[in-house]
Amino acid sequence: MIPVRLIATGKAVPSHSVTSASLDLKLGHPAGYTLRKSGVLSRFVAAPDESQSQLGAAALLDALKNASLRPSDIDLLICACGVPEQALPNTACFVAEHAGLPPGTQSFDVNASCLSFMAAFRVAASMLAGGAYRRIAIVSSDLASRGVDWSEPEASMIFGDGAAAVIVERGDGSAGIRAYKMGTYPEGRRYCEIRGGGTERNPRNGCEPGDYLFRMDGKAVFRLAVKVMPDFLAELMQESGAGLEKVDVVVPHQASPLGLAHAARILDVPDAKIIKIFETHGNQVAASLPTALHEAVMTGRAVTGQRLLMMGTAAGLTIGGMILDL
Amino acid sequence: MIPVRLIATGKAVPSHSVTSASLDLKLGHPAGYTLRKSGVLSRFVAAPDESQSQLGAAALLDALKNASLRPSDIDLLICACGVPEQALPNTACFVAEHAGLPPGTQSFDVNASCLSFMAAFRVAASMLAGGAYRRIAIVSSDLASRGVDWSEPEASMIFGDGAAAVIVERGDGSAGIRAYKMGTYPEGRRYCEIRGGGTERNPRNGCEPGDYLFRMDGKAVFRLAVKVMPDFLAELMQESGAGLEKVDVVVPHQASPLGLAHAARILDVPDAKIIKIFETHGNQVAASLPTALHEAVMTGRAVTGQRLLMMGTAAGLTIGGMILDL
Repeated sequence: MIPVRLIATGKAVPSHSVTSASLDLKLGHPAGYTLRKSGVLSRFVAAPDESQSQLGAAALLDALKNASLRPSDIDLLICACGVPEQALPNTACFVAEHAGLPPGTQSFDVNASCLSFMAAFRVAASMLAGGAYRRIAIVSSDLASRGVDWSEPEASMIFGDGAAAVIVERGDGSAGIRAYKMGTYPEGRRYCEIRGGGTERNPRNGCEPGDYLFRMDGKAVFRLAVKVMPDFLAELMQESGAGLEKVDVVVPHQASPLGLAHAARILDVPDAKIIKIFETHGNQVAASLPTALHEAVMTGRAVTGQRLLMMGTAAGLTIGGMILDL
Repeated sequence: MIPVRLIATGKAVPSHSVTSASLDLKLGHPAGYTLRKSGVLSRFVAAPDESQSQLGAAALLDALKNASLRPSDIDLLICACGVPEQALPNTACFVAEHAGLPPGTQSFDVNASCLSFMAAFRVAASMLAGGAYRRIAIVSSDLASRGVDWSEPEASMIFGDGAAAVIVERGDGSAGIRAYKMGTYPEGRRYCEIRGGGTERNPRNGCEPGDYLFRMDGKAVFRLAVKVMPDFLAELMQESGAGLEKVDVVVPHQASPLGLAHAARILDVPDAKIIKIFETHGNQVAASLPTALHEAVMTGRAVTGQRLLMMGTAAGLTIGGMILDL
């Protein structure tokens, strides 16, 4: 087991929320269409003057408050977003500024698209184990609304903006990562993408406005995930040394109703053990996992001594699972 | 010390190189202007059909060849670029595809702009220490040419495209990171930036073509770096338990002639110990450090048993230094 203790979680959402009923009106759909298609009752949407890093910093400050800590108590900030705020520099620099971290605090970004938080959590646990860091903050913030194409129902209505943060320490060895598994299947690298924003499509190399919008082949993602997930999960459980019956709470990536239903089906655990915030938040990209984790903690469904399973799929296509003893 | 052994390095550059003399002609400058202003004799520039991830994969395959390893020998790929290939998914997915890593290989990106490689190296060492990974590849690839504004001499002529990779293992404990220090000073977050490419400036939220180009206030970067670097370096050396006289080779980020000259001045080590590839490569963003490291290894200036100092500044502004016993 890799020792790591979850000290606190925090969350932030934009000030504005949008119901599926109001999207029906805005997009000219019949009443009930957006809810039926997306499974989302309402999602948060950032105003033009709200930034991804401000939201991330608000989540970090919430986590610090919940732990009765100050910004100067953080040795390392890992920003774990799906999409950056700018192409350069990395998003942690902006979050550090808004959160008031002391100048000179260590920071970098980790990116595994929607599974950035899980990858960063594994990185943080490794770095804490060495003893050089006392306390690490992980912040995930994503503003999907800045890149959705409202003419594509499947790829737009399911998304919501948001941020969440955790603070972790090494702990006394009683809590930690019991099993961890992540894998990238590049055959799916174009199933979910925003082609612009980097060196591939830009004004210098040729691009069009649509390159900056999110595109998804949901069926292809689902087919690949269904193919690889069962074996993947079996190997994860085997590594953990115990079966699903030992898992107290499941925190899945809130990808889509189809994805959540599939997770529930292959997991075969009581529905009450699965954290679901999709209806009220939508798919918040990399912020989904820590926001769902925050929900689990705040509702008393994830407490010290319990075993938690975190799992999900990400653009890439990347698949990941982690068994965490709290 | 955090045990980690450098098994192999590799490098790739685009097929095309551009001399400063030819830039004088292209941009209408008097003969000698570009060389005098930039300090670069020639830099590599990717053709429109060459991609960042193809270049990164070529560097990784070169490192694998130098280690007599196959893609399937890699347990984890960490992509450590300054700017991504696309906004989504992360660049490692594309590198994994081009390099032929087996589907399901773990991968993610680490980003600390020009110091991404150093941050990823520290992450890799921590992850190897736990024993769950046998061998990690770190790949840095950047195509600065896709984002430079040729009307800005200071911010365009110094850059070059390229990629480099390393393969690391835990080793027997005789080699490793003796000291490591990194810090972000967000007051400098706008000194070097590409504002577009993420959630801040895009066709949805408002942007202009210039937002996708690199902007730099070189004087401001230099002032901040000069202010914080001496104490920073002193603390790094103190952590290493020995002075600069014990350092056999210095691998600085190839930022600019001014930056390299400042590093040489505050270091006070014989010039022959400092790896300089700026004249023939320019500033290759995150690929600079591993490309310079590859040069040090290939020219026999970094061999087993030696002590190496890696250091540099990055957009953010982030400053970093690492003492590595080879």
